[in-house]
Amino acid sequence: MLVGDGHLSEFRAVDWRDGKVILLDQTRLPHEESYLEINDWREVAEAIRSMRVRGAPAIGIAAAYAMALAAADSRDVFAAADELAGTRPTAVNLFWAIERMKRAASEAEPGQLAQRLLQEANAIAAEQDAADHTIGELGAELLPDDCRVLTHCNAGGLATYSFGTALGVIKAAHRQGKQLFVWVDETRPLLQGARLTAWELEREGVPMALITDNMAGHLISTGQVDAVITGADRIAANGDTANKIGTYGLAVLANRHRIPFYIAAPLSTVDLSIPDGRSIPIEEREPDEVKSLGGKQITGDKVAARNFAFDVTPAELISAIISEKGIIRQPLEAGMRKLAMEDDGR
Amino acid sequence: MLVGDGHLSEFRAVDWRDGKVILLDQTRLPHEESYLEINDWREVAEAIRSMRVRGAPAIGIAAAYAMALAAADSRDVFAAADELAGTRPTAVNLFWAIERMKRAASEAEPGQLAQRLLQEANAIAAEQDAADHTIGELGAELLPDDCRVLTHCNAGGLATYSFGTALGVIKAAHRQGKQLFVWVDETRPLLQGARLTAWELEREGVPMALITDNMAGHLISTGQVDAVITGADRIAANGDTANKIGTYGLAVLANRHRIPFYIAAPLSTVDLSIPDGRSIPIEEREPDEVKSLGGKQITGDKVAARNFAFDVTPAELISAIISEKGIIRQPLEAGMRKLAMEDDGR
Repeated sequence: MLVGDGHLSEFRAVDWRDGKVILLDQTRLPHEESYLEINDWREVAEAIRSMRVRGAPAIGIAAAYAMALAAADSRDVFAAADELAGTRPTAVNLFWAIERMKRAASEAEPGQLAQRLLQEANAIAAEQDAADHTIGELGAELLPDDCRVLTHCNAGGLATYSFGTALGVIKAAHRQGKQLFVWVDETRPLLQGARLTAWELEREGVPMALITDNMAGHLISTGQVDAVITGADRIAANGDTANKIGTYGLAVLANRHRIPFYIAAPLSTVDLSIPDGRSIPIEEREPDEVKSLGGKQITGDKVAARNFAFDVTPAELISAIISEKGIIRQPLEAGMRKLAMEDDGR
Repeated sequence: MLVGDGHLSEFRAVDWRDGKVILLDQTRLPHEESYLEINDWREVAEAIRSMRVRGAPAIGIAAAYAMALAAADSRDVFAAADELAGTRPTAVNLFWAIERMKRAASEAEPGQLAQRLLQEANAIAAEQDAADHTIGELGAELLPDDCRVLTHCNAGGLATYSFGTALGVIKAAHRQGKQLFVWVDETRPLLQGARLTAWELEREGVPMALITDNMAGHLISTGQVDAVITGADRIAANGDTANKIGTYGLAVLANRHRIPFYIAAPLSTVDLSIPDGRSIPIEEREPDEVKSLGGKQITGDKVAARNFAFDVTPAELISAIISEKGIIRQPLEAGMRKLAMEDDGR
């Protein structure tokens, strides 16, 4: 793959080449680094549903490129938009990107639709990449020189485009020469920590250790964690934040032990249309993801299981949100409205 | 297997038959219900180390029967005791049972050692079985008629002898006709919840759903859990309690959302010789248990992992300890000393 700023460790989770969407198949990592070349927008929708591409910003970019594919193939881009919007319910970046692409489609000159949509999708991707690097630089300032950070799920380049949000902060601090050590939650059921975050940090050369999700309490209570950083799938107007299941428990532990809990996310993750976390739809996925691990069934056939994919962390437990427009501190609601207004006015 | 009180669902995790120790091999559950027949005490030690038998009371009983085997085989029972004590560090029931067996060995009449040690091991097992049922009856009174309970790891008959402590409470309430629903934490890395607790509750016919450990926060914060009950591996004099990794995080969540957090454990789990949880040794096991499952690796080869097997829940977060001598409420320290003294004086 082409490399963003020449750093050896870089990759692209989503890309466009020769009229096709290129997806790094995240279900096959870390054992296999294989790329899907897709020329049918419906296959992109299926890749989002089956989490071959996942992460709030990355599924937004993938959906944008899927609409560009639909336009190139002379399909109804608004019908494609509707189906793409039905793939996953929680991450708002998906709907944000689709709305932006629909606006671009509405405004396109006759005969220019395909070109205009590709241009818009490229812009969304480029803006996300720039946002990641800015989030990384801003967030790195929050980390002391010698710092043990705990992260959950994967808010890396695999979840955004190439650099990452929570992992962008970690990568930026590491590249600045700070002594970082990362505790990587494995993140059941789909093991995004064990499979994806460990893979990204290993490429980057950041010292780390993998743990099971239930070990965080022991590490935090025995003084072995200095900060927790995660990404976000949707941030309500009051700062309540939906993120991968398990995030809430980490925020509660960080609060109890007075260590900072940071959310790193682009402003496209903020949803000012909903007042608080109770209005965020929480995806529930197939029980089989819980009943098996790495493709192997771990419980009895008849055992019932539930599979909530996200939880909501109330604003009061969030020390700061690291966005590409600045660090939003408490009270989060006022800070977000200010930045969102500046963003609209640019 | 012989059945304790004629209930169809019963089994024995540890037993003695025809001069052999019989262990239900817990590493093969739920897919296979197979029993190890062991006539060498060193193989019992290895079965404890490799967690073919696990759970604080059950490893105490297994070690006791191992010493009975050593005596029957004319081996040095005190040397066997030393090696058995080195198998696992955290659960105090192991050391408690070994000390009790050493005392019995010291007091045995000449020529009666083997018989005396078998008698003592049988007594430890029988007392545990009685304790489980008493704990079940006492604990069931704490659960309302319509109750959603969350449990972690396996504090069932597989962890004790046949009935269980935390699961004993659940089984007793269910047999009384209470409407119970159990959320079963899968309990990574070795999945005692998914493999063992789900198996026990299914045999018992208790409605339940398996979840990943990181889903508890979502369920508790959205009002879907009425009580949390776990077992214990060691309870310090002040009530601080070591139990399976992840227990502490549940206690913190229960406390934040004002639902009761109960520990169900026999008095043999109480260690009055240590003042608080900081003195409880926390076992760290092989990283491969985190990096793989059933021989299948879930992360990159070179990824480092840590594997803390237990954590400590401070006394202040424990609503009550359910023991076979009564329910110990806050302040736990005074209540435990009183019951322990009564126990010694019987």
